[in-house]
Amino acid sequence: MDFSAKLDEALNRLHEEGRYRTFIDIEREKGNFPHAVWNRPDGTQQPVTVWCGNDYLGMGQHPAVLEAMHEALDATGAGSGGTRNISGTTVYHKRLEAELADLHGKEAALLFTSAYIANDATLSTLPKLFPGLIIYSDALNHASMIEGVRRNGGDKRIFRHNDVDHLRELLAADDPAAPKVIAFESIYSMDGDFGPIKAICDLADEFGALTYIDEVHAVGMYGPRGAGVCERDGLMHRLDIINGTLAKAYGVMGGYIAASAKMCDAIRSYAPGFIFTTSLPPAIAAGAAASVRHLKTDQERRDLHQQQAKILKLRLKGLGLPIIDHGSHIVPVIVGDPVHTKALSDMMLDEFGIYVQPINFPTVPRGTERLRFTPSPVHGPREMDTLVNAMDQLWSHCALNRAELAG
Amino acid sequence: MDFSAKLDEALNRLHEEGRYRTFIDIEREKGNFPHAVWNRPDGTQQPVTVWCGNDYLGMGQHPAVLEAMHEALDATGAGSGGTRNISGTTVYHKRLEAELADLHGKEAALLFTSAYIANDATLSTLPKLFPGLIIYSDALNHASMIEGVRRNGGDKRIFRHNDVDHLRELLAADDPAAPKVIAFESIYSMDGDFGPIKAICDLADEFGALTYIDEVHAVGMYGPRGAGVCERDGLMHRLDIINGTLAKAYGVMGGYIAASAKMCDAIRSYAPGFIFTTSLPPAIAAGAAASVRHLKTDQERRDLHQQQAKILKLRLKGLGLPIIDHGSHIVPVIVGDPVHTKALSDMMLDEFGIYVQPINFPTVPRGTERLRFTPSPVHGPREMDTLVNAMDQLWSHCALNRAELAG
Repeated sequence: MDFSAKLDEALNRLHEEGRYRTFIDIEREKGNFPHAVWNRPDGTQQPVTVWCGNDYLGMGQHPAVLEAMHEALDATGAGSGGTRNISGTTVYHKRLEAELADLHGKEAALLFTSAYIANDATLSTLPKLFPGLIIYSDALNHASMIEGVRRNGGDKRIFRHNDVDHLRELLAADDPAAPKVIAFESIYSMDGDFGPIKAICDLADEFGALTYIDEVHAVGMYGPRGAGVCERDGLMHRLDIINGTLAKAYGVMGGYIAASAKMCDAIRSYAPGFIFTTSLPPAIAAGAAASVRHLKTDQERRDLHQQQAKILKLRLKGLGLPIIDHGSHIVPVIVGDPVHTKALSDMMLDEFGIYVQPINFPTVPRGTERLRFTPSPVHGPREMDTLVNAMDQLWSHCALNRAELAG
Repeated sequence: MDFSAKLDEALNRLHEEGRYRTFIDIEREKGNFPHAVWNRPDGTQQPVTVWCGNDYLGMGQHPAVLEAMHEALDATGAGSGGTRNISGTTVYHKRLEAELADLHGKEAALLFTSAYIANDATLSTLPKLFPGLIIYSDALNHASMIEGVRRNGGDKRIFRHNDVDHLRELLAADDPAAPKVIAFESIYSMDGDFGPIKAICDLADEFGALTYIDEVHAVGMYGPRGAGVCERDGLMHRLDIINGTLAKAYGVMGGYIAASAKMCDAIRSYAPGFIFTTSLPPAIAAGAAASVRHLKTDQERRDLHQQQAKILKLRLKGLGLPIIDHGSHIVPVIVGDPVHTKALSDMMLDEFGIYVQPINFPTVPRGTERLRFTPSPVHGPREMDTLVNAMDQLWSHCALNRAELAG
């Protein structure tokens, strides 16, 4: 068995399809977001503006967050020293879980090392708690939900993206007595479109199903206290399990679920991905708690975020670029070819100091390869001008079509 | 469907078996490890000594580690702002990966948010790279390896713990042309026994199999530069993939694999658990790198660690307590009943301020429930006296047998 040749084959497949990924090595500068330094492969450096980060609100450089982290480091040291069950539960973890339970109006919350593992661990554990569980999963759910659904060993049904009629058909076709859960997202990050939350909750009520929502691209940014789209729409109480991240709008790291006390107790007791892993460092938990607390009242930052997204979409539309606009903060510009997308991204970086990563298959369907911009409150008018001008020039240079896609 | 009743059932099963886990909320004090404060459920506080942490060498309070973390926070902010592919690769991640590749004498290393996800993601991705792969997995492998093996979709064979003859039988029974990988650990954390590394590498050579080793409970602590048991035994070059953690002896957080450049490149390109998750915060990567770097030369700390473990085992043996001793740093005392184990642990905490978690099924087999002590260089003679005296008193109080188990 020639293992090396097999690795070559696997890597060559990616090269041939133009979707081999190269890490761009950057260093953000605290207090100066979205500016950063790009360390080129040849060892030289170039200043860049980051336009594809997920620190959507710039909280990763907020003084309240950094102060909390410094303080926890000084008080209690670096790591937690254990799993949650074996010496790794601290007052920092408890405080953060209380902050999150309060945020979502739930009895409890449960921290994980990432929202990826929160999705994967929770969804794969539910069938242990509810034997015979059938899981109904949106076709465009995030990879972490797919992994959790795949290996939960239970029955699964995939409904067409946001297609409530299809979901109803599937629910109606199954045994009414079987336990059911519907898993979906509030904002799908690649197109920036919203899930039909109310309609899905209505169906869940009708068929007696649990509801599981991923609010990873919404927490911190939507709702009067930043609890997400469910809060904005007055639907939070209708969701049984809410999944969120502390690594995007909250600017730190980690993921969680918020749910009933009993549900959290059962998940923490049965999920290997929770039980057998070292808990988050106290400084991380402290920083995340400070960020969640701060964003409960900083509506101004949320408004500015939405305004920046609106302005960028308006200006790119003005140039006739094919952007997708579902009214969220995510700004995808469709290029439609992996090689062109990569070339555009390279030129943006090299010639304009604009860092935006190409998004290719399998993250998005083939033929919809794109650049995805993430404007934030820390992107000023000067940064936006540079971006819009660069896109205008390169679009012409590459002779790409200027045609509005459906919004 | 009464979901709430089902949750009660699941939780009651744990209560009935005496293995419902309660979080002990502690706060370690930097500079004063292993001392900590226990926040009792009633809101009062009690000083305790932590005897079950995995910060084996006390690196979580080392000035070099904390200084690196403070510096990175000040320079670059809190979170990384993205996945490794989308704006989340920084010079801190690259430096840490270089430090780890150097540590293990491999071409490359790949960071994950935990060693749990490093095991799970890598083992579940290997069959994508080597179609038809058969995985041979030690029966006592860690939960994270079991999860990875289970969902990789490939064939699997479980060999009896450390039983090289059984492994040979299984290897010999399969198609010689099938790609194979043997997955095992260098130190099994519940008994503290060592895997037969050389014998397994010999078998791998004979049958043309890849070797995958988990050195989570060894890195930092064994080998002249802290690379683990494989380094100590001069076998590091014979392992294809080495898995390690930054959360135990290195005192911070995160996990990794070290392997050939091609192997790391393929895993990072194909593993959803790597691709679709926010990278470690730069400050975490900086702290971990400082810790790895420091322990490459701090042999004194490793010697002291081993000495402390030897002394504790000697003293507990002197009392006739049934400890397991395989010559590693882990000190399990077998109680053999979940309710007794929990009661002992509670009395240690309440009456003596000694925090040691009960270890129950499914973490260990039923009938071998235990207390597991983790002595470290920061546990002084006074702490050890208190522990030994407490164990002596409680063992008599509970009328438990004093009989030496096999070492």
